Amino acid sequence: MFASDNWAGASDRVMATLVAANADQQPAYGRDAWTRRADAALAEFFGREVAALYVPTGSGANSLALATLQKPGGVVFAHLEAHVARDEAGAPLLFAPGTMLHLVDGAAGKIGVDELADALARYPDGGVHHGRPAAVTLTNVNEIGQVYTPDEVAALADLAKANGAAVHVDGARFLNAVASLNCDPADLTWRAGVDAISLGLTKTGAFCAEVVVLFDAARALDAQYRQKQGAMLFSKNRFVAAQVVALLEEDHGLGLARHANMCAARLAQTLEAAGAPPLYAPAANEVFAWLTDEAYARLAAADVLAYAWSPFSARHPERPSPAHRLHRFVTSWRTGGAEIAEVAATLAAAPA
Amino acid sequence: MFASDNWAGASDRVMATLVAANADQQPAYGRDAWTRRADAALAEFFGREVAALYVPTGSGANSLALATLQKPGGVVFAHLEAHVARDEAGAPLLFAPGTMLHLVDGAAGKIGVDELADALARYPDGGVHHGRPAAVTLTNVNEIGQVYTPDEVAALADLAKANGAAVHVDGARFLNAVASLNCDPADLTWRAGVDAISLGLTKTGAFCAEVVVLFDAARALDAQYRQKQGAMLFSKNRFVAAQVVALLEEDHGLGLARHANMCAARLAQTLEAAGAPPLYAPAANEVFAWLTDEAYARLAAADVLAYAWSPFSARHPERPSPAHRLHRFVTSWRTGGAEIAEVAATLAAAPA
Amino acid sequence: MFASDNWAGASDRVMATLVAANADQQPAYGRDAWTRRADAALAEFFGREVAALYVPTGSGANSLALATLQKPGGVVFAHLEAHVARDEAGAPLLFAPGTMLHLVDGAAGKIGVDELADALARYPDGGVHHGRPAAVTLTNVNEIGQVYTPDEVAALADLAKANGAAVHVDGARFLNAVASLNCDPADLTWRAGVDAISLGLTKTGAFCAEVVVLFDAARALDAQYRQKQGAMLFSKNRFVAAQVVALLEEDHGLGLARHANMCAARLAQTLEAAGAPPLYAPAANEVFAWLTDEAYARLAAADVLAYAWSPFSARHPERPSPAHRLHRFVTSWRTGGAEIAEVAATLAAAPA
Amino acid sequence: MFASDNWAGASDRVMATLVAANADQQPAYGRDAWTRRADAALAEFFGREVAALYVPTGSGANSLALATLQKPGGVVFAHLEAHVARDEAGAPLLFAPGTMLHLVDGAAGKIGVDELADALARYPDGGVHHGRPAAVTLTNVNEIGQVYTPDEVAALADLAKANGAAVHVDGARFLNAVASLNCDPADLTWRAGVDAISLGLTKTGAFCAEVVVLFDAARALDAQYRQKQGAMLFSKNRFVAAQVVALLEEDHGLGLARHANMCAARLAQTLEAAGAPPLYAPAANEVFAWLTDEAYARLAAADVLAYAWSPFSARHPERPSPAHRLHRFVTSWRTGGAEIAEVAATLAAAPA
Repeated sequence: MFASDNWAGASDRVMATLVAANADQQPAYGRDAWTRRADAALAEFFGREVAALYVPTGSGANSLALATLQKPGGVVFAHLEAHVARDEAGAPLLFAPGTMLHLVDGAAGKIGVDELADALARYPDGGVHHGRPAAVTLTNVNEIGQVYTPDEVAALADLAKANGAAVHVDGARFLNAVASLNCDPADLTWRAGVDAISLGLTKTGAFCAEVVVLFDAARALDAQYRQKQGAMLFSKNRFVAAQVVALLEEDHGLGLARHANMCAARLAQTLEAAGAPPLYAPAANEVFAWLTDEAYARLAAADVLAYAWSPFSARHPERPSPAHRLHRFVTSWRTGGAEIAEVAATLAAAPA
Repeated sequence: MFASDNWAGASDRVMATLVAANADQQPAYGRDAWTRRADAALAEFFGREVAALYVPTGSGANSLALATLQKPGGVVFAHLEAHVARDEAGAPLLFAPGTMLHLVDGAAGKIGVDELADALARYPDGGVHHGRPAAVTLTNVNEIGQVYTPDEVAALADLAKANGAAVHVDGARFLNAVASLNCDPADLTWRAGVDAISLGLTKTGAFCAEVVVLFDAARALDAQYRQKQGAMLFSKNRFVAAQVVALLEEDHGLGLARHANMCAARLAQTLEAAGAPPLYAPAANEVFAWLTDEAYARLAAADVLAYAWSPFSARHPERPSPAHRLHRFVTSWRTGGAEIAEVAATLAAAPA
Repeated sequence: MFASDNWAGASDRVMATLVAANADQQPAYGRDAWTRRADAALAEFFGREVAALYVPTGSGANSLALATLQKPGGVVFAHLEAHVARDEAGAPLLFAPGTMLHLVDGAAGKIGVDELADALARYPDGGVHHGRPAAVTLTNVNEIGQVYTPDEVAALADLAKANGAAVHVDGARFLNAVASLNCDPADLTWRAGVDAISLGLTKTGAFCAEVVVLFDAARALDAQYRQKQGAMLFSKNRFVAAQVVALLEEDHGLGLARHANMCAARLAQTLEAAGAPPLYAPAANEVFAWLTDEAYARLAAADVLAYAWSPFSARHPERPSPAHRLHRFVTSWRTGGAEIAEVAATLAAAPA
Repeated sequence: MFASDNWAGASDRVMATLVAANADQQPAYGRDAWTRRADAALAEFFGREVAALYVPTGSGANSLALATLQKPGGVVFAHLEAHVARDEAGAPLLFAPGTMLHLVDGAAGKIGVDELADALARYPDGGVHHGRPAAVTLTNVNEIGQVYTPDEVAALADLAKANGAAVHVDGARFLNAVASLNCDPADLTWRAGVDAISLGLTKTGAFCAEVVVLFDAARALDAQYRQKQGAMLFSKNRFVAAQVVALLEEDHGLGLARHANMCAARLAQTLEAAGAPPLYAPAANEVFAWLTDEAYARLAAADVLAYAWSPFSARHPERPSPAHRLHRFVTSWRTGGAEIAEVAATLAAAPA
């Protein structure tokens, strides 16, 4: 039940909005009324005009955003556990051929300021052989369930800008980050120096709703051609836009994210009490906990699925013992108290 | 109302199936029960096992299919009005960089056998400078609303195979072709020598349901990696699969296609009677008719939208007079008699 | 002997300059004295400062130049017999993935102004599905041995610029064009609106000397990164630069080109006299002549090789009879009177 | 004088062979007699038939070789200081878009067996999200001047093969490795499981002579198309082939490499004696030595240039003191005793 938040399906409100969006004929390719309404919801959410491109997948959003920020010979800096580097089968390298990824470590799964400074220093001006900085991408919520604060984003963005690099956020669980920090989305993005964000709403509670948001209107036209050429332009875009509308209007999605975050906090307490200590206190809707294989086998037998996780970073706390393995538990809008109780009950017999 | 069949939204059955697919948690990335059911429906439809990849857009399906059929230095042959060449902003050239398109003319918007033979003869063995044949792609229903018969497909496929090229069908309106010919889908594809088809169900009556179908299982693994790297793998794939299930089971989609085809036939009669002669007798759900600008202005004022079309081929019948311009009318599952009556009424006052 | 001008090797002066360039150690990657001298020779040749990138092959020069002029969703317009479209195995489509080629006909192997205007009209503003004009490329000397005048270049360039497209010249035999027109290279390029030229000196009389010349300095930095990423940056660049120096200084290369052009004129007379009429009066160092297979067999038996040519354009004069086939004869700095006499003698017995 | 071996120019024998190769007209694109002779010299060198592709640059050779070994979703494993990852501006990622590089550490600048095993274990079968192993590339002589033995190559190749990955060698200084080990080139390549090598002869003593050597003939045809499409096919290929002939016949190149290696050994002794300790005992023609900025300034003033080096690996011996910086000295066929004496003299006054 905790394998991933993309097992959860769509919320009732999303479903109802889809039905409403299907009432009549509407122009294709985003020239419809629902897309205009989604654009407005995004402007409201971010507190300013934005250029929005509705795309099919999170990998697509990241690839399109990074391609838009690229330049010839450009290097993209990412955390060494970043989804763009580890879980997208090279998509960003297909959509912008020649893109070099430079992977950087840091505490708690976040890009470290010192580590980024060291990495950027590898690319002095004029070094055509090495390439040049083009973008820094950070994941918020990050891959290990931790959250960058506005100040942390701004510190990395300042460094990036000083070295000629643009800033991108992979926001596959961005509403969970906003819910966790209880902050203004603007403070986590453009006010902190972010140029583009992949805003993922699929995991939050949609079927399929991913948006590339550009804060610099001058990049929009190129991005539109890249979107079409990248086969990411939906003909019946209104149905994606309707999901965005459902999730952003009246803070419906934020409410779902808060619920998921709360479930993760409770699950972490449950796991810790059962002898399965979390790697970090969960900041959003993911818990990474150490389990013995025997304990996980019992959970799996009770249909409580999690995902075995192999960290790349050298900066994580060490495993409690060689018998332990790290597992990722993800909560969602659909997670219920019964599922958490199941974990407690299963582990109660023989602790993890 | 006739601007495009992708203005139409989704059928009630599709909508109901989506609701059903949202009942519970399901594994992501196509490991769910709905995807298995869609796989089975596709096998039933084509009368054999197939490898199916569910992708977001028709351009994506074409690009993935053609990339899978490509080889280094490979040339793809297409009709000079083909969607892959004219309406996808170069997508197939992004997903398989270096792909050369060789455009071929032919009667009625179809690749001519003689023309294809001449084109293939440009690529003798060992001519590394020119490239080599990799694939022939044909669109069925084609861009001008005409349909290739099984024999026509087989003749082109034989020629392709004899020259080392694989065969792909862009089937954005494939159910309309099947409905038009009243034939077995197998006869239009693998039995005629087709290696892969982009099966488009979005226009037929879905929100978003495009499938790359490979008839050669040996190509499936490579294609799966290309799909993921191409950012075309949905996390919540069950919702795409559910639409495929809704449209293929019990011939629901074929029924929708028959309705759309029938509307096109009636519309063609209506237009002809009003002095707007069709370019060709419609074979599926598209009518291309000559209209004066004045006549089209009246239609548009009555909200009867069509799409101004500029043909590339030199083989089409000539325009009736310099005052005429070609317009494309597309019908869909949603087209009603009232819309066709509106055309008749609007043009009755002053013929086209 | 007339198969191609790239069978000819290097002139004595080129050879001697190479020896001179090998006298000592020199910095790598173009930071050497010979590269500075070649830069100066290019500035002198074109009558202004230019950015020069020394690259290995003509296909590389064209690909790098066009990639530099590209934009997302960009279309490149070329003559339908253009080397970039027919003889480079898709290289320009590899170096700028997604590039669409739009092929245009015209008289005498040249892009026609009307044909280009019609082609550009296919890409109205905002049509994201079709792409947008990015560049027009013309070959001078063209593929059929004809030459664009400065006025002809300017007319195409004006049209290109009015539609947002940059202008590139494939100058694989550019010195032959300059020699033919006896004009200022500036008038054939930047004064006529050309943004970049692939200046080929290999065929003129070098081992390997191809240069991308950019007239807009603002494009230089991006192009340098593309050159390095495109694996086109020679470590021992001085040896390529030395060949450029040898050919441009004191008009050595122009002299070689004049010789080759003169040989072509004499060869054309010889062929015509022998009943093998040229397709066009040769404007540079290529003669395209109609020969029966029997006549060509006799020439080949005498080691007088030519290249069988299949034209694509519908605008060429028709073949004299079905028994005739078109052959391309190319002359070079190394062509001697004896070779032309051999042609005359071989065909004298039984005319072509 | 020690900045790089690509500052050195070409040997007298190479020069004389170039002159000989220019005696007459010869077919283009490698259909000439010199290319056949170079093919034979390569077969002799490696002790078996090989497929050889003559290309312009080392980056081009690596990119073409790796593209030939790629598969969709493929990951290439390289040492984290590898030239392909750090000094080619992303070229291998342009020629095979989507290629993921997985960087691996190891002692002495070599890929460690355990580190590679750990890295490969990240890519279990069926993990479409992560990609799959396609190739392992190792540099021999490596970037830090050390040499893999045949046994070391075989151990990595066995591991690669067991995980479905092919094996490539970046042999930019391969003759220096062969000279250092005094071994049979076959033992360092195909007998140890290598599938392809980038054989670099430019640094050894040519103007420009880089060869992709494939040991599996079945890959040759694809590679030839990739070479042409990659703009790496020389028209006047005989001049590159002639350099290969000059360097491989009668072990001329091996003799040059032995001289360069010997100079490096002497230079290392000189530096150590002057208080500039080498990072490692040099195995080929490179010395990496610790120098204070002050000491390097004195050398530079005496025109003894070296290259400041920033290692990436955590496995190198630590710097002697914070005042020291690592410098790379490279010797070549042209290095003379006077240059080494200059180093000794300059550092004698005040040790490094």
